[in-house]
Amino acid sequence: MASKTFNTLSLIQKKRDNKSLTRNEIAYLIDEYTHDAIPDYQMSAFLMASYLNGLDEDEAAALTHAMLYSGKELDLSAIPGKKVDKHSTGGVGDKLSLILAPIVASYDIPVPMISGRGLGHTGGTLDKMEAIPGFTVDISLDRYRDILEKCNIVMAGQTEEIAPADKRIYGLRDVTATVESIPLIASSIMSKKLAEGIDALVLDVKFGSGAFMKTSESAQELAEALVAIGEDFDKETVAYLTNMNQPLGYAIGNWLEVEEALRALQGDGPEDVMEVTHMLAGTMIMMGDKAKTIAEGIAMSRKAVINGQAFDKWLELTEEQNGDTEVLKDFDRYDDAEYFFEVLAAETGSVSGINAYKAGMASLELGAGRKTKEDEIDPAAGVILKKKIGDEVQEGEELAIGYTNDKSSIEQARNILDSAFQIQDKSAEALTMITHRVDAEGVFSID
Amino acid sequence: MASKTFNTLSLIQKKRDNKSLTRNEIAYLIDEYTHDAIPDYQMSAFLMASYLNGLDEDEAAALTHAMLYSGKELDLSAIPGKKVDKHSTGGVGDKLSLILAPIVASYDIPVPMISGRGLGHTGGTLDKMEAIPGFTVDISLDRYRDILEKCNIVMAGQTEEIAPADKRIYGLRDVTATVESIPLIASSIMSKKLAEGIDALVLDVKFGSGAFMKTSESAQELAEALVAIGEDFDKETVAYLTNMNQPLGYAIGNWLEVEEALRALQGDGPEDVMEVTHMLAGTMIMMGDKAKTIAEGIAMSRKAVINGQAFDKWLELTEEQNGDTEVLKDFDRYDDAEYFFEVLAAETGSVSGINAYKAGMASLELGAGRKTKEDEIDPAAGVILKKKIGDEVQEGEELAIGYTNDKSSIEQARNILDSAFQIQDKSAEALTMITHRVDAEGVFSID
Repeated sequence: MASKTFNTLSLIQKKRDNKSLTRNEIAYLIDEYTHDAIPDYQMSAFLMASYLNGLDEDEAAALTHAMLYSGKELDLSAIPGKKVDKHSTGGVGDKLSLILAPIVASYDIPVPMISGRGLGHTGGTLDKMEAIPGFTVDISLDRYRDILEKCNIVMAGQTEEIAPADKRIYGLRDVTATVESIPLIASSIMSKKLAEGIDALVLDVKFGSGAFMKTSESAQELAEALVAIGEDFDKETVAYLTNMNQPLGYAIGNWLEVEEALRALQGDGPEDVMEVTHMLAGTMIMMGDKAKTIAEGIAMSRKAVINGQAFDKWLELTEEQNGDTEVLKDFDRYDDAEYFFEVLAAETGSVSGINAYKAGMASLELGAGRKTKEDEIDPAAGVILKKKIGDEVQEGEELAIGYTNDKSSIEQARNILDSAFQIQDKSAEALTMITHRVDAEGVFSID
Repeated sequence: MASKTFNTLSLIQKKRDNKSLTRNEIAYLIDEYTHDAIPDYQMSAFLMASYLNGLDEDEAAALTHAMLYSGKELDLSAIPGKKVDKHSTGGVGDKLSLILAPIVASYDIPVPMISGRGLGHTGGTLDKMEAIPGFTVDISLDRYRDILEKCNIVMAGQTEEIAPADKRIYGLRDVTATVESIPLIASSIMSKKLAEGIDALVLDVKFGSGAFMKTSESAQELAEALVAIGEDFDKETVAYLTNMNQPLGYAIGNWLEVEEALRALQGDGPEDVMEVTHMLAGTMIMMGDKAKTIAEGIAMSRKAVINGQAFDKWLELTEEQNGDTEVLKDFDRYDDAEYFFEVLAAETGSVSGINAYKAGMASLELGAGRKTKEDEIDPAAGVILKKKIGDEVQEGEELAIGYTNDKSSIEQARNILDSAFQIQDKSAEALTMITHRVDAEGVFSID
């Protein structure tokens, strides 16, 4: 609890009048709210005032601090080496964690991954891991530490003990139209990540039709807010702005993405996926003190794929977390979805757009995602794209294939998926995947 | 209940994004909130968004409408004549209703007065009426109509049935720092006044140190918002901007103000009090179709004081509502406060300021007001000013006298009252009392 007592009403007033709150004042609000001493209706008024008037860097850091210390912080200090994690703001077809975590861990850098589940059109890493038969993410804290120490990699879900204030405030924001606030988003992300006990963090901040941030400008703002909080906590933090104007890779859906990730770990990854993977992994390898520069880290990342050490790391982790490694080596052993359907090109031309949001919604409709928190996921459901932006296509050629065990979902999913594609006469250019790096030194354009 | 259903979250979002809500959308929010279908935390987020982004004229009218029809509207149509009421935004020493209501009613214009109680530094008309021994404001609706029909004047408190949504929303605004919003204030005032079944309304919008609106500009904004809502409901509405940079008249405190009002009705009223009284009463007489112009109405208002018809009307009302009329004719019959103290001038000069807020707080401290809704009022407590702005004063001369039955309150009250006065060397000018009239035609400066 904050030692000093403030008047809640006057703190709401202060933010309403666009003044900055002190760190103690922010701590008081969050602590009291978490302890039920401030009611929801006062917190929601404060959140709306914060949404509209903003929070400055100091306030965002104080909010992160208060939410982080509302719960337990994992102590990983007994494990040697710099602990490095990666966080993505969420996209469609984003299986990057499944590829880069074993790459980085294969260089003896501990990667303590605490991930979330999917809701709405974006998937969650946990759901993807659970698509591997037998793989369990429900492990105790002791087991979590053991696996990390032994394998340098572990995959688990967030516990109730991590940043409970964030969980509660996020729930309130969700029903009071105060979600889309950059300082509130940044504090929420960082309070959870910093509670993991990491030393350094790479952030994949996505922009575009399939991302939370629709424009590169707002993604940059979020990246800067995230990096500023990381700096405030003395944790090395680097963010990349990456393009989510089409799904990442070709696979959308839990098992389909695991397959794509495993192929990538064996040298057969989609170009866009590998470009971002190597940039993030290379940066993490540098942060873990195993490379002097990002360029050297990227070269090491490529090497870990070519020589198979990353794939071996993945098998090691899977075995450790009770997953079936045989199916990872032979995809034919997996129970594919019962039904599939094709989406065909209505005209000849060049693919100029694949709306990632719609592609995600089609996959969700087929059973790959959750409309509400209680929904069950079908791990085999999803979409495989056959064309990406910039590809030429003939009338009647396959654009995508949908997979599902729920026949009744096909018609609607097909319509959504069909409407996701744009085809034009003149040839379209492939997307630039990474546009900027944001770190403590500033914002850098990437060619 | 609103017939159409909307998504609450998207309505909060709309106001958050500074877009205008439709009348149906506003009605939905208020109806659902009143019926517990929208929780406090969503309403408070909406209120903060409304506070910061504002409500346009149409939204304010829709809000007034929704709050008005959340309860019962008095039907006074069986009573002949145009029903005219007056509302003040509240000031220190504001006993105008007690003087102008009998003046207007003495011309057979029905004045259906539903008033409030005081909270904080400003007094309430109901508390003042109840300072008359025996006077009861707790009367049934039937009795209310009977008295109005018989006397053309009645004084009662707001019932639970009048605009319950306003009551609830006001309570929420009070604890979420969303009180001081012009459209929210205007809707709150008008929903209650329009529920009275009136045909026309005069508004006394005060500005200055003792008023809710500190500046003439914000008072004008509020006046325009109030008149716009009146117009929307096809009710003739006129507002005056009046000066509250010192207390109104010399008396502050319930019985002390009754005495001053009764003296005023007998021709011995303070200059500032009578200037505003005649302007408001004259306007009401014109609105009640008994005068062709405001000037003619003002002349009639003066006449009603001189010929005693207004004082007689007051006695008639008092008798009707069980008040003691003997004490009104002979103030010596009243039980004065047990203790009194003087505040003396520390220097010779001209009174250049009397902070109305402080004067009100001193009176409150002495027992004339309520710090919380549950506090009991001492009707005999209060303050009598001996000097007003512009008056010359000698060192050691009386500036004010405080009255109380609570000896322990004297020291603090004296300090507050003492600090309310400002004296300067050069002679100070008396305040201009009425600066502007605001009506459907626009804003007019008054010389």
